[in-house]
Amino acid sequence: MGQNSNNAQVVISPLAPKDGFGAFPAIDGVTFAAAEAGVKYASRSDVMLVSIAEGSTLAGVFTKSSTRSAPVLDCQEKLAALGAASTSDAPLPKDGFAILVNSGNANAFTGRFGADAVGKTTRAVAAALNIPAAHVFSASTGVIGEPLPAERITAVIQTLKARLSPDKAEQAARAIMTTDTFPKGAVCEVMINGKPVKIAGFAKGSGMIAPDMATMLVFIFTDALIDAGELQATLSRLNETTFNSITVDSDTSTSDSVIIAATGKSGVQIDGPQSATGREFATALGAVMRDLAHQVVRDGEGASKFLAVTVSGATSTQDAKKVAMSIANSPLVKTAVAGEDPNWGRVVMAIGKSGATADRDLITIKFGDILVAENGWVSELYREQDGADYMKQTDLELFVDLGLGEGRATVWTCDFTKRYITINADYRS
Amino acid sequence: MGQNSNNAQVVISPLAPKDGFGAFPAIDGVTFAAAEAGVKYASRSDVMLVSIAEGSTLAGVFTKSSTRSAPVLDCQEKLAALGAASTSDAPLPKDGFAILVNSGNANAFTGRFGADAVGKTTRAVAAALNIPAAHVFSASTGVIGEPLPAERITAVIQTLKARLSPDKAEQAARAIMTTDTFPKGAVCEVMINGKPVKIAGFAKGSGMIAPDMATMLVFIFTDALIDAGELQATLSRLNETTFNSITVDSDTSTSDSVIIAATGKSGVQIDGPQSATGREFATALGAVMRDLAHQVVRDGEGASKFLAVTVSGATSTQDAKKVAMSIANSPLVKTAVAGEDPNWGRVVMAIGKSGATADRDLITIKFGDILVAENGWVSELYREQDGADYMKQTDLELFVDLGLGEGRATVWTCDFTKRYITINADYRS
Repeated sequence: MGQNSNNAQVVISPLAPKDGFGAFPAIDGVTFAAAEAGVKYASRSDVMLVSIAEGSTLAGVFTKSSTRSAPVLDCQEKLAALGAASTSDAPLPKDGFAILVNSGNANAFTGRFGADAVGKTTRAVAAALNIPAAHVFSASTGVIGEPLPAERITAVIQTLKARLSPDKAEQAARAIMTTDTFPKGAVCEVMINGKPVKIAGFAKGSGMIAPDMATMLVFIFTDALIDAGELQATLSRLNETTFNSITVDSDTSTSDSVIIAATGKSGVQIDGPQSATGREFATALGAVMRDLAHQVVRDGEGASKFLAVTVSGATSTQDAKKVAMSIANSPLVKTAVAGEDPNWGRVVMAIGKSGATADRDLITIKFGDILVAENGWVSELYREQDGADYMKQTDLELFVDLGLGEGRATVWTCDFTKRYITINADYRS
Repeated sequence: MGQNSNNAQVVISPLAPKDGFGAFPAIDGVTFAAAEAGVKYASRSDVMLVSIAEGSTLAGVFTKSSTRSAPVLDCQEKLAALGAASTSDAPLPKDGFAILVNSGNANAFTGRFGADAVGKTTRAVAAALNIPAAHVFSASTGVIGEPLPAERITAVIQTLKARLSPDKAEQAARAIMTTDTFPKGAVCEVMINGKPVKIAGFAKGSGMIAPDMATMLVFIFTDALIDAGELQATLSRLNETTFNSITVDSDTSTSDSVIIAATGKSGVQIDGPQSATGREFATALGAVMRDLAHQVVRDGEGASKFLAVTVSGATSTQDAKKVAMSIANSPLVKTAVAGEDPNWGRVVMAIGKSGATADRDLITIKFGDILVAENGWVSELYREQDGADYMKQTDLELFVDLGLGEGRATVWTCDFTKRYITINADYRS
C-alpha cells in the first residue's frame, strides 16, 4: 500500500496485543518509566517518563487546532528555541532530554492554569534529571477544562526517575492509554551502510477520536545519528502520508502530538533526503509511522472494519487527498461499511461533495478487485452479490480513479457503528 | 432567531403534521397534481406535477456537488437559457411553466440514460400542457445509479394533467416523500403596499440526509410580481442563511434543488433589494425558507433534538459560519447532544478544528442563557447541574462568541443517535 516501502530492506514488526511488548527493542540512550500518580484514575499507572541521552536530536509535529493544549504550545516553543539555538554560533548545551506524559487530564482549555502546570511538572523533571527545563517535553491526554493537578505528578517524579530502564517501554505505553483497548507499538530494524539502525515507537490512539480524550500521542525513538533539521523535515514529510492520512470521525484533538528522538548511538550517520542513507531511514521510519497509524484506526471506538481509501487520477495530490478524506469521513459511507453494504452511490456522493475537480462520467470505482462503476454508471460486469460478498471482510480496500491526472493519495479509516454512538453519547453521564 | 424577521409584519404559519395541509393557501396561477407511477414503490403516489401560469418568473438554487444528477443539470441549463432570453431583444414566449418530480429513483449517476430520461419526461409534460420543453423543470429523489423508468412516468402524465387543481399541494408534497416522516409546508401572507402577497412552499427533507435518497427538494410559490433576475438574487441571498445553514450529517446530495415561481397574479410589484417592497418580500420569503429548513432538520433521521448554533464575534461572516458548521457537523458534539451531556470541551475542540481564526482565551460559550466558559476556561459561575438540566430540553441553543470581530452566523442541526446508524447501516440489506 505504502509509497515508501519500495526502496530499502525493512523488517517491520507490529506489536499486536497478543504479542505484548516483548519485541520492543532497547534503544541505546533511551530509558522508560511509569508510575501511579492518581491524576484521575485510581489503581492504574497514569504517568510515564522517558529519559533521552545527551547529544540526541528531537523533532515533533502537533495538532493544527487553534485551541491546542498548554503542553502542545510548550513543546512547540521549546522545539523552536532548540532549532534557533542549533543555527546560532553559541555552543549547544550538552544535556539530555526528557518526555513526561500523563493520562486522565488533557490540560486543555484550562486558562492560565494550563501553562502553570506545564511549568511546574517539566521543571520538576529537569531538576530531578539535572537537565535544562527547556529540554523537557510533555503531553497530557484526558478530560478537557479541568486544571491538571500538577502536584500529584511532581510527587512521583523521584519514583519515575528510580524506575527508568531501557525495557520499560510497554509500561510507559500502558500508562498513557485512555479508551485504547490495547497498547500500540511498532518496531523496525534497517541496515544502513552495513550497520543496523533501530526505530521503535508507541502510540496512544484515540479510537474514534475519543470523547474528551480526543488525542493521539506518538513517541518514536531511534539510535540513528541525524541532524535535528533533517529529522524534523523527514518527520513532517512522512506525517502527511501516515498520521495525517487517518481519520476516525473527522474530529480533531486539541492535543495530538508526535515526537521523535534520535540518540545517534548506532553511529550510523543519516544524510539529506536525497542521499541513500536519507532514503533508507525515511523508508523505515515511514513504515513504523504507518503501522502505528493503522493501529490507531483499528482501535477506533466501536470500529468493526478497517477501510483503505485510495484515490488516483486526480488533478493534484491535494485533490486526491481531499476526495479520499471526503469518502473516509462521510457518515453515510461509514455506516454503509458497518452494514456490509456495497453502496457505491454514497461513494459518488462523497466524491461530489469533496470540492475537488471531478467529472462524473470519468470516475471509476472499485471495491478491492471488483470493478463497480465506470463511465458515469454502474459497470456492466458488476454483480451486486460480488460487492456484498466483498464487504463481509474485515479489511476493505476502496479505489477511486478520477481519470483526470496523476494525483494520488491513500487514507485509512474505520466504520461507524452503534457502539460509537453508545460510547460517545453516554461518556460523561 | 432570524436576521430577516425584524423589518416587516410577517405572519408565518408552519404546517405541522398534525395540521395536515389544510392551511396551504391557493396561489393564483398554480395548480398541483399527484399520481401513482410505480417508479419503485408500490401502492403510493410517487409523481407530482405543478402547472404554473404564463407570465410567471422562476428562479432556482441547486447542489454544488460535482456529481450532480441529470435533472439538476437540466434545470440549471434551462434557467440559464431563460435568463439569457430575458436580457435579449427577442420577445419572451408567453407560455406557462411546469415542474415534474418523482420519488423512488434519483436519476443520478446513470450515465447517458440520465439525460435521456429527463428529456423524455419533460417533453411529455410539455406536449400535454402545450408549453415549450424549455419551460418544464424536473427533480428526482431516490436510489442512485439505477436508470429512471421514464415510460412509467410518461404513462401517467395525462392523469396528472386531469388532476391539476389549486388545492392539491398536500398530495403533491406527499408524492415526493422518501424517508420523511411528515410532509413539510410553510405559508406566509405579507401586506405590501396595502395589498396581500402570498408565499407558500413545501419540502421533501432528507432527514439526516438520507441513505441513497440523500436529497432535499423545495418548491415555493408566490403571487408576487417580480422580475426573474430579482427573484433569483433574492433566493440566492436568502439561501445562504436558510437551506445552506442547516446540516444533518455533513453529507451533500447529488440532487438538492430549491425552485421558486412567482405568478404576479397579486399585481403587487416587488422592486429591488434596497426598496421597501424588496425588503418586505425578502423578509417574508426568508421566513418561509427558514421554517422549511428547520422542518427538514427536525425530521432528521433518528433525530431526537434540534440544535441552533450561533457564532458571533468572528473576524468575518465566513469565519462565523465555518465555526458554526464545524460544531454542528462534529460527531462528538452531536453524540453529546443525544446523550444530554453539556460537553463544552467538545465545543472547544470543534472551534479549534474549524480553520477559522480563534483565540482560545477570548472564547465565550453559552448553553441557552447559561454562561459555561469564558477567558479560556470554565466560568466560575457555571454549575455542571445547570448544564445537565438544560440539555434535557428538545430544542437547544448554543452560543459561541469568539471575541474578535463582528462576524455572526447561525446554523441548525440535530443530534446523532443510534437510530441514525440503524437506518443507514441497514438501508440496502
